[in-house]
Amino acid sequence: MSTTIGVEAIGLAVIGAGYWGPNLVRTAQATPALRLEWLCDLNEERARGVLGPYTTVRATASYQDVLDDPAVKAVAIATPAATHFDLVRAALEAGKHVLVEKPLTPTVHESAKLVELAERAGLVLMCDHTYCYTPAVRKIRELIHGGEIGDIQFVDSVRINLGLVQPDVDVLWDLAPHDLSILDHVLPGGVTVEAVAAHGADPIDAGRLCMAHLSVWLSTGVMAHVHVNWLSPTKIRTTVIGGSRRTIVWDDLNPVQRIAVYDRGVDLAPAGSLDPAERHQALISYRVGDVLVPALPEREALREVMAEFAAAIAEGRPARTDGRAGLRVVAQLAAASRSAASGGRPVRLTERTKENA
Amino acid sequence: MSTTIGVEAIGLAVIGAGYWGPNLVRTAQATPALRLEWLCDLNEERARGVLGPYTTVRATASYQDVLDDPAVKAVAIATPAATHFDLVRAALEAGKHVLVEKPLTPTVHESAKLVELAERAGLVLMCDHTYCYTPAVRKIRELIHGGEIGDIQFVDSVRINLGLVQPDVDVLWDLAPHDLSILDHVLPGGVTVEAVAAHGADPIDAGRLCMAHLSVWLSTGVMAHVHVNWLSPTKIRTTVIGGSRRTIVWDDLNPVQRIAVYDRGVDLAPAGSLDPAERHQALISYRVGDVLVPALPEREALREVMAEFAAAIAEGRPARTDGRAGLRVVAQLAAASRSAASGGRPVRLTERTKENA
Amino acid sequence: MSTTIGVEAIGLAVIGAGYWGPNLVRTAQATPALRLEWLCDLNEERARGVLGPYTTVRATASYQDVLDDPAVKAVAIATPAATHFDLVRAALEAGKHVLVEKPLTPTVHESAKLVELAERAGLVLMCDHTYCYTPAVRKIRELIHGGEIGDIQFVDSVRINLGLVQPDVDVLWDLAPHDLSILDHVLPGGVTVEAVAAHGADPIDAGRLCMAHLSVWLSTGVMAHVHVNWLSPTKIRTTVIGGSRRTIVWDDLNPVQRIAVYDRGVDLAPAGSLDPAERHQALISYRVGDVLVPALPEREALREVMAEFAAAIAEGRPARTDGRAGLRVVAQLAAASRSAASGGRPVRLTERTKENA
Amino acid sequence: MSTTIGVEAIGLAVIGAGYWGPNLVRTAQATPALRLEWLCDLNEERARGVLGPYTTVRATASYQDVLDDPAVKAVAIATPAATHFDLVRAALEAGKHVLVEKPLTPTVHESAKLVELAERAGLVLMCDHTYCYTPAVRKIRELIHGGEIGDIQFVDSVRINLGLVQPDVDVLWDLAPHDLSILDHVLPGGVTVEAVAAHGADPIDAGRLCMAHLSVWLSTGVMAHVHVNWLSPTKIRTTVIGGSRRTIVWDDLNPVQRIAVYDRGVDLAPAGSLDPAERHQALISYRVGDVLVPALPEREALREVMAEFAAAIAEGRPARTDGRAGLRVVAQLAAASRSAASGGRPVRLTERTKENA
Repeated sequence: MSTTIGVEAIGLAVIGAGYWGPNLVRTAQATPALRLEWLCDLNEERARGVLGPYTTVRATASYQDVLDDPAVKAVAIATPAATHFDLVRAALEAGKHVLVEKPLTPTVHESAKLVELAERAGLVLMCDHTYCYTPAVRKIRELIHGGEIGDIQFVDSVRINLGLVQPDVDVLWDLAPHDLSILDHVLPGGVTVEAVAAHGADPIDAGRLCMAHLSVWLSTGVMAHVHVNWLSPTKIRTTVIGGSRRTIVWDDLNPVQRIAVYDRGVDLAPAGSLDPAERHQALISYRVGDVLVPALPEREALREVMAEFAAAIAEGRPARTDGRAGLRVVAQLAAASRSAASGGRPVRLTERTKENA
Repeated sequence: MSTTIGVEAIGLAVIGAGYWGPNLVRTAQATPALRLEWLCDLNEERARGVLGPYTTVRATASYQDVLDDPAVKAVAIATPAATHFDLVRAALEAGKHVLVEKPLTPTVHESAKLVELAERAGLVLMCDHTYCYTPAVRKIRELIHGGEIGDIQFVDSVRINLGLVQPDVDVLWDLAPHDLSILDHVLPGGVTVEAVAAHGADPIDAGRLCMAHLSVWLSTGVMAHVHVNWLSPTKIRTTVIGGSRRTIVWDDLNPVQRIAVYDRGVDLAPAGSLDPAERHQALISYRVGDVLVPALPEREALREVMAEFAAAIAEGRPARTDGRAGLRVVAQLAAASRSAASGGRPVRLTERTKENA
Repeated sequence: MSTTIGVEAIGLAVIGAGYWGPNLVRTAQATPALRLEWLCDLNEERARGVLGPYTTVRATASYQDVLDDPAVKAVAIATPAATHFDLVRAALEAGKHVLVEKPLTPTVHESAKLVELAERAGLVLMCDHTYCYTPAVRKIRELIHGGEIGDIQFVDSVRINLGLVQPDVDVLWDLAPHDLSILDHVLPGGVTVEAVAAHGADPIDAGRLCMAHLSVWLSTGVMAHVHVNWLSPTKIRTTVIGGSRRTIVWDDLNPVQRIAVYDRGVDLAPAGSLDPAERHQALISYRVGDVLVPALPEREALREVMAEFAAAIAEGRPARTDGRAGLRVVAQLAAASRSAASGGRPVRLTERTKENA
Repeated sequence: MSTTIGVEAIGLAVIGAGYWGPNLVRTAQATPALRLEWLCDLNEERARGVLGPYTTVRATASYQDVLDDPAVKAVAIATPAATHFDLVRAALEAGKHVLVEKPLTPTVHESAKLVELAERAGLVLMCDHTYCYTPAVRKIRELIHGGEIGDIQFVDSVRINLGLVQPDVDVLWDLAPHDLSILDHVLPGGVTVEAVAAHGADPIDAGRLCMAHLSVWLSTGVMAHVHVNWLSPTKIRTTVIGGSRRTIVWDDLNPVQRIAVYDRGVDLAPAGSLDPAERHQALISYRVGDVLVPALPEREALREVMAEFAAAIAEGRPARTDGRAGLRVVAQLAAASRSAASGGRPVRLTERTKENA
């Protein structure tokens, strides 16, 4: 924590004092490059409760007041997804930079519009894909981009626990943004998501999907899979990324060993002049090598998000998880919803929503 | 182990001295109700190696000699799946009872034929669905049939590890028989599998699916899911069975706590006269109760298989995992293969292959 | 978090802005019954850094200013152990209630003096034995006091990790206060610690014990054992409390299953008229029953500490972990140090330092 | 398993058909260099039961018959410890090589006598310190002897579970031989055990120690600790060997990751010319590096024991865990017993019982 706020600190307002807002408030206060001016919530009492009795930060129920305040250069929005489009648009139109919770908006159309608006106005539009800022995901990205794991052969991600049945979104839109944004972040440049299929169920009659299985096909032909579930009594958050050279196992609930890199796998020797009958056994071999557990720094991801938001604004560049990344994730979610509604057939992504710089 | 073999012991021959055969040899020798006469393998040397130098059991390469031996009343077949149909038929036609490894045969048609043949001849045709005889699965069956978990809401089964890429079958036919036979065994009477969908991939160009995701729809509308994978560097064998009252988590690799029964879940209160706007929050509630880890007896499943096989023969009754169970599993596998080959669309089971007494 | 501070809120100053102080600051601010007035540290800059740039709380380097402030009714002291005696005495003499970190002081003599001083002045002297306020320890206490586990047969506590080698205290005085205060808290009324022995080592030449094994004998004849170690690369925090009826296993690093109650153990049947030769086998039997994992509330222990401190002050009663508890723990630590210095011989506690209401 | 027994195979008799004998029978039969001739037990029926109904191996109740059989060159003894001295001596006097279960005998005097007897007769006397032949312990020995972990700084071994309360030995003599024989095996050449202290308890009135804590001092000044316990409802088998360069954590119950090598620890920089007041902080630093999990071969330790026994006989050399290793372990156990009986004071080992080639 810092005692003083930098002279050049960027004035910030946090919008939304619900589940996630208090975390934005806390980390914004710990970021020297930001100066928290307001916490805004329709329920001003709730905002005041989040700030606590010892604060110098102001609470308000008026979004307009925030947008009208020239000291506010940026807003961080943590409200229900259905409100994102209007709130983000208003902020951009008022010339504010925006950090917004995932999903960017509930539709591809709206998300694309916000991306366009921000780019035209030269403002930072950043999605809070928090996981992309964890030491674990940064290490995974580094391992993949550095070539350590070879070609990706499969991805398997499980994110299940006894979760809150959300009033406004189903389990796909609640949990899968994490997995899809991570995938978007760690894939090598040029590899895109081509199609998505999903099977889901609502076994408790909640009125929306409470569990879902997504199959995601990459432009390399590889299949990734994501399992999200609100009904599991045990919590699992594990992602396996199988590579031709090594395989990464990320268990986010194992603080001692979040990431393990296995030199273990099945190899296929290049085909020779063998008799077809003998070829099968001759070509396959197994590696059972060591496992390496890399040391990871201990850093709070959300603080990195805040620092990146401030840096992107200061440097006039897109944030690492910018609106386009948010748009790609929304497009994949929308395709998954369409697939689930039609018996699980694969739905292709359109050109516009899959480019990945 | 017993010193003597019972007077009424049933003469048995084991066919196949490959991967699984030695286990049948060992457990047959430890079953007083059986008298092991032969171990038969095309490679007689291999059979002799399995028996070891201190045995009184005979090795042979001739299946015909075994079938011609009147002391042999039953055979236990552990050969590649493609040979099952011929070997089982020959045995049944020779009047022998049969225990056969999974899958029963590679096609529904052949499996159905063997079931019919055995029933007409009044012979026991038993599938070695070994897992159904583990203390864990017996306890799960007891919990479900006793009503302890309420209505089944979802099933999620993961069976992944660095497995041998089989020369003759893909990962679906190699691993999913375990999950499907367990599901078949524990479901309440009258609940059937209606349809199956599968997405799979062969990322190492092995010439067959090396990973697959199955969605299985039950007649109650519930969705079950099975993930099988030969390429995972870590081994996971976990099945979650979510119920309206309690949820079972079975982790077969945790010897200390194979089964845990969670009194934890999401409840939906019966709808009242609430304003629709308030209904959502009012109706959903969460239970976070205790977890019970039932003590399980330590018993080797394969010995139970052998004992059940002997008992079914002695009592002239179908074995617990009889040919019909084997046929149902084969039908589900065949449907999964068809679905995987056609982009993952659900494939319905026919009436004939889904009845479950 | 609360927006407003109660009218009757107790004015509090936190002393010490080092490792633990910030936690006291944070939780005091979240306790409606308290009103945080000051954070005091010899290094005022450090205090200001802890408070951050958005606070209304004052920082100071002057302890005297704090003691002179009539708005301050209580202090919470988180400074090095060697300073506790002077700081606590000064506070008590100034008529302030005191919450102090463990250990109370480095000597039995000084600790006893502070206890006496507080009792004579009618002031609350509370030790921050934080673990005693965790849901886990409260459940353990309830299980023991409710008779669920029967008579305690053994206690085994392991608290090891790669810990900071402290400049002022050895591993015994740094880590064992946790285990000893927990033991003090959960033992049934009337059961006291009679003697302590310790073996320790300093394998890295740090100038003080870096690992130690304590044996603790209770008045019931039972032996408890505590292993503390700063040098272990893996972190273990496990306590087993074996009882004649059930055994508790507390694994504080397993959030899913912190406490498990095992109905498992060795029973000794009452002696009958058996031939001595046969007696041994006849008398011993084994229970291998179920395991129960009780649901625990999620509550931060330090908030409970703050609430208890405020309540003890408001109600004019001793806190649950009062100065006497702190004195008992210090006496045991001092005995352990003496034992370690003399080759591990058991050192008895004196009457005065072992009474446990 | 092998079909045939080598021409030069060594005739073997197994003595004792109780808890461990069946394992010796099974592995002897799988060792081509051995030819199992007899299984001998006072209860011939029990021996026959262990051999099963399909064997060509003979059962007998007469030890004399076994010793008189010229085809028997070696015996493997798995009887209660109290019988070892007489049985081993008789075998050696009959000119047979001996493999004997741990502990070698219950007293130092008898063990020393057997060692002397075997050496004078030029016969192999080997102790079945099975753990020393596991892939894990072999890897640990290799890591220590190869210098990878630097100087050993501490050893901590825990071996607890709900164990059978033995009729003839206490928990020290039942379980600690494992830990002490492993320590004996992996220590660098020339490092000896100098003294032992033990605290133990019998909380269930079983008539013997059911839990014990051993402190073991090495000639390098390092302290090792062993915790053995029959009463723990959970099973733990973990050994940590802390080194100046790296630390080994061996968790024998974690098949996925039995051994992990941590590049993590506390370093003390060489003292410079610093002001004493600043020295402490300046000299200590912490490494938090990667963890390496070495791949281990899958091999059954007892088969390695059998192979080593046969090889030692064939090559006329001492076995890796010879009588002297057994004697050292017995001497440490005897010292521990004496210490436990006298309140835990350290007991020094005599010169004769601590040499370690």
